[in-house]
This record gives sequence, C-alpha cells and structure tokens, in this order.
Amino acid sequence: MSERIREILGWYESDNPGTLTKLARLLKHGVLGGTGKLVILPVDQGFEHGPGRSFAVNPAAYDPRYHFELAVEAGCSGYAAPLGFLEAGAREFAGEVPLILKLNNHDVLLEERDPSQAITGSVEDAVRLGCVGIGFTIYPGSEHRLEMYGQLRALAEEAKRRGLAVVVWSYPRGSGLSKEGETALDVTAYAAHIAAQLGAHIIKVKLPSAHLEQVAARKVYEKQNVPAGTLAERVRHVVQATFNGRRVVIFSGGAADTDDAVFEQVRAIRDGGGFGSIIGRNSFQRKKPEALRFLKTVIDIYAGAVK
Amino acid sequence: MSERIREILGWYESDNPGTLTKLARLLKHGVLGGTGKLVILPVDQGFEHGPGRSFAVNPAAYDPRYHFELAVEAGCSGYAAPLGFLEAGAREFAGEVPLILKLNNHDVLLEERDPSQAITGSVEDAVRLGCVGIGFTIYPGSEHRLEMYGQLRALAEEAKRRGLAVVVWSYPRGSGLSKEGETALDVTAYAAHIAAQLGAHIIKVKLPSAHLEQVAARKVYEKQNVPAGTLAERVRHVVQATFNGRRVVIFSGGAADTDDAVFEQVRAIRDGGGFGSIIGRNSFQRKKPEALRFLKTVIDIYAGAVK
Amino acid sequence: MSERIREILGWYESDNPGTLTKLARLLKHGVLGGTGKLVILPVDQGFEHGPGRSFAVNPAAYDPRYHFELAVEAGCSGYAAPLGFLEAGAREFAGEVPLILKLNNHDVLLEERDPSQAITGSVEDAVRLGCVGIGFTIYPGSEHRLEMYGQLRALAEEAKRRGLAVVVWSYPRGSGLSKEGETALDVTAYAAHIAAQLGAHIIKVKLPSAHLEQVAARKVYEKQNVPAGTLAERVRHVVQATFNGRRVVIFSGGAADTDDAVFEQVRAIRDGGGFGSIIGRNSFQRKKPEALRFLKTVIDIYAGAVK
Amino acid sequence: MSERIREILGWYESDNPGTLTKLARLLKHGVLGGTGKLVILPVDQGFEHGPGRSFAVNPAAYDPRYHFELAVEAGCSGYAAPLGFLEAGAREFAGEVPLILKLNNHDVLLEERDPSQAITGSVEDAVRLGCVGIGFTIYPGSEHRLEMYGQLRALAEEAKRRGLAVVVWSYPRGSGLSKEGETALDVTAYAAHIAAQLGAHIIKVKLPSAHLEQVAARKVYEKQNVPAGTLAERVRHVVQATFNGRRVVIFSGGAADTDDAVFEQVRAIRDGGGFGSIIGRNSFQRKKPEALRFLKTVIDIYAGAVK
Amino acid sequence: MSERIREILGWYESDNPGTLTKLARLLKHGVLGGTGKLVILPVDQGFEHGPGRSFAVNPAAYDPRYHFELAVEAGCSGYAAPLGFLEAGAREFAGEVPLILKLNNHDVLLEERDPSQAITGSVEDAVRLGCVGIGFTIYPGSEHRLEMYGQLRALAEEAKRRGLAVVVWSYPRGSGLSKEGETALDVTAYAAHIAAQLGAHIIKVKLPSAHLEQVAARKVYEKQNVPAGTLAERVRHVVQATFNGRRVVIFSGGAADTDDAVFEQVRAIRDGGGFGSIIGRNSFQRKKPEALRFLKTVIDIYAGAVK
Repeated sequence: MSERIREILGWYESDNPGTLTKLARLLKHGVLGGTGKLVILPVDQGFEHGPGRSFAVNPAAYDPRYHFELAVEAGCSGYAAPLGFLEAGAREFAGEVPLILKLNNHDVLLEERDPSQAITGSVEDAVRLGCVGIGFTIYPGSEHRLEMYGQLRALAEEAKRRGLAVVVWSYPRGSGLSKEGETALDVTAYAAHIAAQLGAHIIKVKLPSAHLEQVAARKVYEKQNVPAGTLAERVRHVVQATFNGRRVVIFSGGAADTDDAVFEQVRAIRDGGGFGSIIGRNSFQRKKPEALRFLKTVIDIYAGAVK
Repeated sequence: MSERIREILGWYESDNPGTLTKLARLLKHGVLGGTGKLVILPVDQGFEHGPGRSFAVNPAAYDPRYHFELAVEAGCSGYAAPLGFLEAGAREFAGEVPLILKLNNHDVLLEERDPSQAITGSVEDAVRLGCVGIGFTIYPGSEHRLEMYGQLRALAEEAKRRGLAVVVWSYPRGSGLSKEGETALDVTAYAAHIAAQLGAHIIKVKLPSAHLEQVAARKVYEKQNVPAGTLAERVRHVVQATFNGRRVVIFSGGAADTDDAVFEQVRAIRDGGGFGSIIGRNSFQRKKPEALRFLKTVIDIYAGAVK
Repeated sequence: MSERIREILGWYESDNPGTLTKLARLLKHGVLGGTGKLVILPVDQGFEHGPGRSFAVNPAAYDPRYHFELAVEAGCSGYAAPLGFLEAGAREFAGEVPLILKLNNHDVLLEERDPSQAITGSVEDAVRLGCVGIGFTIYPGSEHRLEMYGQLRALAEEAKRRGLAVVVWSYPRGSGLSKEGETALDVTAYAAHIAAQLGAHIIKVKLPSAHLEQVAARKVYEKQNVPAGTLAERVRHVVQATFNGRRVVIFSGGAADTDDAVFEQVRAIRDGGGFGSIIGRNSFQRKKPEALRFLKTVIDIYAGAVK
Repeated sequence: MSERIREILGWYESDNPGTLTKLARLLKHGVLGGTGKLVILPVDQGFEHGPGRSFAVNPAAYDPRYHFELAVEAGCSGYAAPLGFLEAGAREFAGEVPLILKLNNHDVLLEERDPSQAITGSVEDAVRLGCVGIGFTIYPGSEHRLEMYGQLRALAEEAKRRGLAVVVWSYPRGSGLSKEGETALDVTAYAAHIAAQLGAHIIKVKLPSAHLEQVAARKVYEKQNVPAGTLAERVRHVVQATFNGRRVVIFSGGAADTDDAVFEQVRAIRDGGGFGSIIGRNSFQRKKPEALRFLKTVIDIYAGAVK
Repeated sequence: MSERIREILGWYESDNPGTLTKLARLLKHGVLGGTGKLVILPVDQGFEHGPGRSFAVNPAAYDPRYHFELAVEAGCSGYAAPLGFLEAGAREFAGEVPLILKLNNHDVLLEERDPSQAITGSVEDAVRLGCVGIGFTIYPGSEHRLEMYGQLRALAEEAKRRGLAVVVWSYPRGSGLSKEGETALDVTAYAAHIAAQLGAHIIKVKLPSAHLEQVAARKVYEKQNVPAGTLAERVRHVVQATFNGRRVVIFSGGAADTDDAVFEQVRAIRDGGGFGSIIGRNSFQRKKPEALRFLKTVIDIYAGAVK
C-alpha cells in the first residue's frame, strides 16, 4: 500500500478493519489508485431529475449496465447509484469497480421550499450487493435537516459496524438560506463540517463561491482575513473546515459552461488540496468515447498533482 | 423454460432463486406463459371506488371467488387483490393462478389534494397466502411520496429476502402535478423510472399522453426529438426509461370508450415493446362470457406479437 | 356442529384452526347458537359517552359484573367491552360467554371534525383475558382513516396468528362525509366492504338509510336499479357488498324511538340476510328484567328466521 | 391480611400475584394499613411548577431525602415522585415506604392550550428502584389525549406483566373543556371512568364541583336526579362512575384556603366512600413538625371512618 | 479516593458500579482531580455555529487532535464533543482524558423560534469510543421540549445500564420564554431541576441573571426573600434547586468581555457552591499557550476553593 493511502487510513482511527478495508479498496482502485485522489461516477440523476432529462441526450445511458462500463473503462475510483441501478449490474460487474449504494433520493415531481429525501435503500442492501460503502444526502438549511442528520447517524452506525464506508452528499438548501447562500463559502464549509461531525468518511460538496451568507460568519471571515479570493483558496478553506484536511472531501462542479472551465475547476480542487471530483452529468450526458476523453483529462490533472 | 423467459430473468441478476422462481411462475403461467408477455387481472376497485360502483353492473363480481375463476378461465398471468379478497379464495384456488397481494390501498370516502394509501397487508400475509409477489402503489407528485417510497423500500427488501416478486403501481398525482400532467409522457416515464430505482421487478403505469408536463423535461424532449407522436412511440419511451427495457413494464388503459379502442391501445403497447396489460374494470364489469371474449382478444394480440 | 356453522366457517378458508375455533365458539354460543345468527352485547358507552350518560338511568350498570350477567342471562352470543370492563369480570365469568376485547376507543371530552381513536388494549391482553376475538373501530371518511386501517391491519395479523377472531366496527364519519352521508346506503356498503378487505371476520355497521352520498356511486346505483326502497333491501345490499354474503355482517340500530321500531328493524335485518344485531344502549339502559324481555324478543325474531 | 384488603384485592381479579402483592403492600403500609384507605405523598411539583415555587417556602424540601423521611414519619401509604427524586433516595430508604415512579411529567416553561406530558421514566426504572407501581398522567379534553391513552396502555401492559401496580392521575384539561369544566362533576366522573377502562388500579382525580359541563350529560344528570348537592354526594358519584366502587379512587384537594377546609374535604371524601387523599403541597410546603400534625389529622379522619 | 469524591459518589445511590466508576474517573482526573470540582472542555461549536466562526481565529483548532491536546495539557477534567471530533482522536488519545460524547446537536443554518436538536450519536458509539459518559442538550421553553425530555430519558436509561455517566446541557429557550428569560434565575434553577429529575448526573447551565421571568415564581421568590443579589447567591440557589446540592452542577459563562470578568464569574461559582465550569470558546479561540494560562487561572481559583 502506498504511504499516502496508509496516511489517509490513519485519519479514520476509530474505524474497524472492515471499514478501513473498504476505504482502501476505493482509494486503491482505478487510474488514481494509490494517489489519495478520487474521481467518482455518480448516477442518480434519473431519480433526481427524471430519465428523459438525464439520458435522452445519450440514450445508451438508459441502460444501467452502461454506467458500470463507463466507470470501469474510465478507470474511475468508484460508482455510486440508487438501489435499482446497482441491482441491475452488481452481479455482472462484480469486483470490477467499487460500488456505493445511495440510500436516499429525491425527485422533482413536487418542488418544496424545504426538501427532504426518501429512504430508498438499506445497509443490508449495500452488503448483499457487495458495495464498499453507503451514500446519503443531507440538506443543511432545510427544516427537515435535523431528521435527516438523525437518519444518517443511524445508518452510518450500522454501516460502520458492518464494515462499510460512509459517503455523505452535503447540499445546503431550504428556507434557512438564500439561493446564493447554497454555495456560499461559509455555508459550504459549514455543510462539510457537519457531515464530518456526523461521522462521514468521505464528504461531497459543491464548489463554493466567494459569497458569505451568514452575518455572524462574515464578520469572522473578514476579521480573520480568511483567504477566499480564488477557487483554490476556497477549496482549501473547505478542506480545512473538514477536520483540517483529515477527512476526504470531494467536489462537484459549479456552473461550468465548457469543458475547459471544468478542467480549470479541477485544477483549483487539486491546488486547494481537495481530494477529487464526483462527476455525473458531464460524464454520461455525452457519447462514451467523448466521456472517456473528458474523464481522462480530469484524472490526468489529479494524477499530475501527486507527482 | 423458453429462451425469452430465461432472458427476462437474467435482467434481475441480484435476486435470489426464490424470487426468480416466483417471477418465472408469473411469466410461465396462463395463455401467454413463456412469451414474456403478461395480462394481469387486478381487482382492488371495491376498496378504491366502493363495491356498488365496482360490482353492481355485474353482481356476480361481489363474490371474491368470481375473480379467481375469471383469472383462471381467461388464462391470465396472475391475479392481484387486497387482503380480504385473497383470503376469501386462496385455499380453494391454491395453485391455479399466481397471486399478488396488494399491500396498500386507498378509498374515496375522503378526497385529498395529496393522497396517500393505507398499509393493508404484510409480506407475511403474502407468504401465508401462497402469493408470488406483493403489490404496492406509489403516488409520485404527492407530498406523501417520500414516505411512500420509504414504505415500499422496506417492504420490497423483506419481500426479496423471502423470495417474492415486487410489483409497483406508479401513479403520478398530487399537488406537484396538473391533472393533465398525471399521464404526461415525461411524468409517466419518470414514475416508471422511480419504481425501477426503488427495486420493482414489475411496474405498472397508465398509458401516457403526448403532453409534456415539466418545463425542464420538455426542453430536453424537444431538443432531443424524443419520438412521442404515436402511442406506440410513447410506450417505447416509457420502456426505455425503465432501464432500457430491462424491467417488465405493463400498462393500464387510458380513457377508452369502446372495446376496439382498448384493443388499439393493446396493439400500441405490443408494438412499443411493452410487456402487457393490467386490466381491471374492463374485465369484471361485464358478464363473464363477454369478459372472457374480451380478454381472449387482448391475449391474442399479445400472443401474435411474439410470433 | 350444525351445517350452517360449518358453512360459515368455510368462508374463512385462509384462517388457522385456532381462529376458526374462536369463530365457532361465538357462533355456537347462547340462544342463537348454531343458527348462524348473532346478538352481541357491546358496552363501551362508558368510555365513548361518559359513565353518567350511560349508566345513571340504570345504576346497576355502573358495575362491570352487571354486563357479564346480562349477556349470560339473556343468552347473547358474546360480550364486547374495553380493557377495564373485561379485566373486572373475566375471571369470575370465565367460560360463561365469549368475550371480545375492544382494542381502541374514543371519548367525547373533545369533539373533532375528523375523529380518531386511542389504542386501549392489545392482542396480548385479549389472549390473557381468554377472549375469542378483538374488536376495532375504523372511521372511513375521517382524515385519520388511513392510519386507522394500518393499525387494524397490524392488530388483525397478530390476532389471526394467535388464533383470535377479528371484529370491526366500521363507522363512516369525518370531513369526507355529510352528516346524512354517515348512514347513506352507498357509504355503509363501502364501509362494510373496506372492513372485509382489511381481513375482518365479523363486521358491524349501522343500519343504512336510502340516501346516496357519493355522486359517482349514485349514478351507478340509479343506472343499475340497486333495490333500496325497504330497509330489508338495503340490508341485503350491504350483505352483498361484503363479499356477497361470505362475511358475517351485523347491525346496530338507527334512530328508533320505540321498542317496536327496533323489532321492526330486526325483522328487516333478518329478512335482508343480515347476520344479527349488536345492541348496547337498548339493553343496559333499562332494568334487567325489562332488558331480558327486550333481548328475548330480538333473539326470537332471529330464531324464527332460521326455522 | 384484613378482610377489607382481601376484598379490595378481589376486585382486581385479572391481575397476576405479582401485581396483587404490590397493591397489598400499598394497602397494608403506614398508619392506615389494612383499613382500605390511602394517604399518598406526591412530590412532582419541582418538575411541574419549578423548584423555587415548590420548595422556597420550606427549603429543607429541596433535598430529595426530605420527602422520603416525611412519608415515613407521617405513616403515609406511599410516596410518588419522578425519576430523579426517587433515584436520589431509593437505596437509603429501601423498604421503608412503598414507592410509585411517575413515568410522565410536564413543566410550565411553555403554556399550551392542549397540554401533553413528556415520558420521563420507564417500567424498567420502576423495577430497578424497587417501586410498587408506576404513575401516569392523562389529560382528557386535550387534543393529545388519544396519544396519552395509548402510551398509558402500553406502559400499563408492561407494568402488569412485571408485577407492578398502575396509578393514573386523570386531569381533564385542554381545548375540549372550559376552565370551570375541568373540575365539573360529569367531567371528573368521566375522567375517572376512562382511567379505569384503561386498566388503572388506583385513580387520582380532583375533587369535583357541582358544575355540569357537557350538555348531553347535564340532561341525563338532571333527569335522573343524580345527587350532587354536597361534596360527599359528588365523591360518591365519582366512586360509582369508577366501576361502582370496585376501583380505588383517591382525591386531591380543590381550592382550600385553610387547613380546616381541607379537613372538611377529607371528611367528605370519607363520607362519600372515597379511598383516600393524595396530598402534595399541603404536606411539604410547611415545616416538618407542622406537616406531620397536618397529615396526622387527615389520617385520623380516615382512620375514624373504618371504625 | 478522597473523602469528597466518596461523598459525591454517595449521592448517586441508585447507580450501578459501572456508572460510579465513570463518574469517579471524571472526578479524579486532571489538576482538580479529587477536589470535587470540574473544568470541562466542550468543543461542539463547529457544529453549533460553524467551523469558520469557531476556529478561524485560531486555525490550529480546525484539527480535532488539537482539542484532545488542549484538554490534556491544561489538566481539564474531561473533554466533550460530537461524534466526528471524538472518532478523530479517541484511539490516539485513549486513556489520556475522560471523554463525553455529545449525542445531540444543532446548527444555525436555519433559525427557529422553537429549536430542537438532531440525534447525532448513540450510547453504543460512546461505549466503542471509550467515553465515560454521554452528553445531551434539552431546551426547556421550546415546544419540542417534551420530545427532547423523552429522548434524553431513553438514552439515559441505556447509558446507565451500560455503566456510563449522563451529562445534560439544560438551555432554556423557545417561545415559552423572553430573551431575557433564558438566563433568568427562576428559569435557570428550573432548567437545572428538570435535568436532575430526568436522571442527569452532571448538569450544565448558564450563569443566571437576577431577572425573574415567571410571574408565579417571582411572587414566591420575593415573598420568601430568596437571596439573588450577587452572582454567588444566584449560583447557590441553582445548586440548591438541584436536589439541594446533591447533583453536580457546572456553569458556562454569561457575557464576559474580559478574562478578568470570567475569573470573577468563576470565583462566584466557587463561592456559591457550584461544582465547576465548562469553558469552550474562551479556551480554544486563542493560541494554545494563552489558553493554557487562562485555564490554569480558572483551575487555580477552583483549587483554592477546597483549601
């Protein structure tokens, strides 16, 4: 095992060997295996946005096997999806790519000011499908957040006991926040910190803007001159806010119109000490050869970071 | 076993042999046995609409044994009903037709903008009554949908562990949708996809109209020129949206005034790659000889499809 | 065992011998034993309306032993009451009359538009008190109905597993219904059907009026000319709506000013194919000798029906 | 054992010997032991009203041991308190006075129109602390009453299974009642009856006024000339309403300005056939010697009643 | 063991030796070990206020190991934090400082008039991390308080059964109280008393002001001349209200602008008979050498108190 992986595993000192083994499988898999960087393919957009919106642009992606293949061929670190998608390929692709079962999901057939998610899978499901971990979304800022934290806590306790890793999507939204506030630097750092305090091994947040949402936080950020001018600085702050870099934090893109803009973001994640990317729509909403080229560039940027 | 059944069972690769056996029993039963097509008789209208509205037109149908007989004589693939109706015939008709126990139900003695359903049966009930599977309704678009998804998830996990199949009625309704939107193409495809992601083996939706309900979806459908002009094309899209055809999707009729109109719909389901029909009121709300003739025609259309 | 009892037990073909034994005990007990008719004494009015309103007119009835004695002396088929009343006599009167433990109750110290009931006993209580069955009230039409159906389902499953019978009081009320609608013919038939679908062995409803509440139902009733002119015809329709007479349906009185009016109702129940009466206030709200005379007349009417 | 105690235990004919033993311990303890009368010391006012309001007038009462001593020295039948107070003395005073663990409590840091209570202890706690029984408050008239009845039912079932007695504080309040109605005769009798139906062995209510709250009840009370002119008559009615005297009903004081007024109330409880008093604030909100004198007078009045 | 520790342990007479051992570990640890005084370091501010607001002023504090080190080096009695922070150091610092796992937490990404907290850890977590106890926050005055009391009760029962201590943060807030009322003397005493009644071993409240919030309480306090003029007198009242000093009550600071003001408060806690301090932000929101000096002064004040 590489020194870097050994170092990262050392941060999770309270976990049992079963869970450390699953984290190691994720960190040692794919092109970036051993570097301490991760690129994860998540495909829950069919549930979250609808199948047509998600896959009509690349109809091959309607087939659940497509995403296993994409993750394998691109050399991704892992593949995360809801129950149905994993059930439809977990046997055929057994052992080919680390799997993360998303245990809660949300659809957009009803819009709410304060969203929550439905529980859509169990730790038992993750075990029987051979997954390395469970995924769970929380919505800090929503009036349902306290219940969601409690659900995550219970599932995470069970997952850790059964030797699985815990991956948390921490997405601020709800009546406690302005639209701009959902990606504010202070809010993003806060959301990542909450996930870490709830026991997450790996945390996924959106790339933060330079906006500061909360008055009390803004005062401190300004007084202490928290560097926030560049995206890399903001990534660094989020990493710092997550146990001073002792938890794995990965990022999804903000609004990026072009591939080059995405690559620029990836460089900022790398330069800010982020641990990688989770890239959904930019991966499967184009033809596979193009997707493979795109993912190769992302992976190369991260690979370069460790040389 | 026919090649086609073997192929369909192959799609459910994560299920245990117990569940595959039950799916095989359903797919191999009746006139269409072995063709991969299904015609299921569902009789929950007594609960859903009231006994008088459902059975006064054909009073023989007040007797729970009538529906077992109808399903057997017509050569249907299976018969689905709530607890009371199955308890009243499961011993007498043991082994004569695959049974699906509907585990939730709704009545119309109180109308709600955002409906839910009562839990009316258990997996344990399905086991003791010798059923091949459980049935469950979800209402995407209702503010109770997240709770319903969670209920389905828990029941489906138990059903699969105990070797049963999971059949989901996915009926969009509630404050998230316009009346027209309940059968919109994008919404129907979305509802079928959600059921598949929740782990359903067989999914029942209504026939979709050409309407597109959600703004973001409409943009994509129009940009990608998703074929939606004919009913067969719309069926094909729904099948595609359900794991690219790797889940069994069956349909109930839309508003059809005449038998010929129903048969036309069935041909569209067949031509669009749908897996069959679930036909309730058109079956039992007429005298039995007439019902048998009607069902024979439907079955013949599907049978022709595999020649 | 009489042929008629054997026939009735045959309808409950999915139940285990334990439950059939309890049903047989009820059907074979008292003056009407073996006829297939039932007259049950229910005394939950102390809880439902208050002790003064219920018993001041006949103070002997404050004593819980009074009702056991009344049921025994009158030759009733069974006695149904809440936990406290049964605990206060179940040992002294062990084996003298079949007991039904009412598992939920409601008081009138707070009036609600959409009522529910409190769970006031358990299946375990019914077992330890030597009861033949459990009783449970549902309120179709109330916004709490779905939860009540779910509670009944769970309790009924446990009761059946443990060899008890399930008796359901199905009382339409709540914001889904007009006051007149609570006893409408279509609504009463619907309420009885729901109870049967939820797995009840014995169903108790109020005598239906000729009113038709629901627009969609009224259209069908009128088109199909469902006979509803006489009370006996309306009873017959409710019996038909309850699995075509293959579930035991009993009735409580509507508004009857005189004993003769009650007897007239009983004749209508008998003539309409109803299975008997459940008579509370008319039994215990008069002196015992008078009550015994009254109940004797009711029983005689039913007894005549089977000659 | 005295004949009277044997008689009282006979009323609880469905209880197991474990519970009867605990009831016997309570009825045989203290100065009134064997008489069938009870004087219980309850001290939950620290939780219910705050420690300053409760104990500042007699600061020795801040110490939890004080109340054990007071109950022992006064020869009370038992001592009832919340978890913390009992934990703080149950070992030191083991075996010196029967203990009742109050399993729910309420504070006044937030006033509600429809109050409920928090669950603050368990049956397991009562067992480990050596208690003879559990205490539980219900609020008939509150919109939370149905849930409270259900909580009591579950706890009472467990308590009885584990050989404990069940003591219920039945306090009408909430939006279903006027302020005057909370102590109305009809409402008090109703509240006591509900507690008895829920399976309580001992019931505690407030002394009733002559007011009649509910229209339907008032009509019956007036028509049947229920005697209600004197306090003793009203006590007698409440006792009658509680299974015709076959459940132990005890009373707390109404508004009494002087000790003599309290003694007058006690004589009325005695003369009306009540089973005793539960006296909190009048006991511990004065210096101990004075409290002992006060309690001795109360006990003497009851003791005289059995000569 | 010192006589004082033996005395304090004697107050918890109903606890098992496992729990007493954990209380002894806390009371015997650190500079104040054996004196009966406690200074606890709590670090949940990252969760409660956000990481930037909490740690930007002293970035070393982003690292979870920092707080273990601070608690160890300062000779604190214990260290309390949420799950994530303890998981990140419990192995490395095993046995170096008694740990308290905070089992519920709250964030400020949504402000509510009536706050609650999310359950963020379990008793099982506390056991596997080697903690001496669990921590739990209640909000007397919030409309969610009854549910919070019930959660605490259940967790405390489990903790005590498994040999852990129970530490309760009792923070009045919510629509039942004015802003000033949150730290009023009567309210603070009440909040501490509720925590004691719920079975807490150690109670943490804020330093009380001289304000009296509740009308009924104010009348008693004024009539009984409860001394409240100095902070030491108010501390003494809170200690008295908590089982007359037979439960350990510790305090967090009120608004103190300078270190000297804090020290003055500590002297008042000492002089009023309080058991110590819980000091978060004043500890970790400055550089470590300065924090150590600050904590040394606080500890010295308490140490002087026992000479």
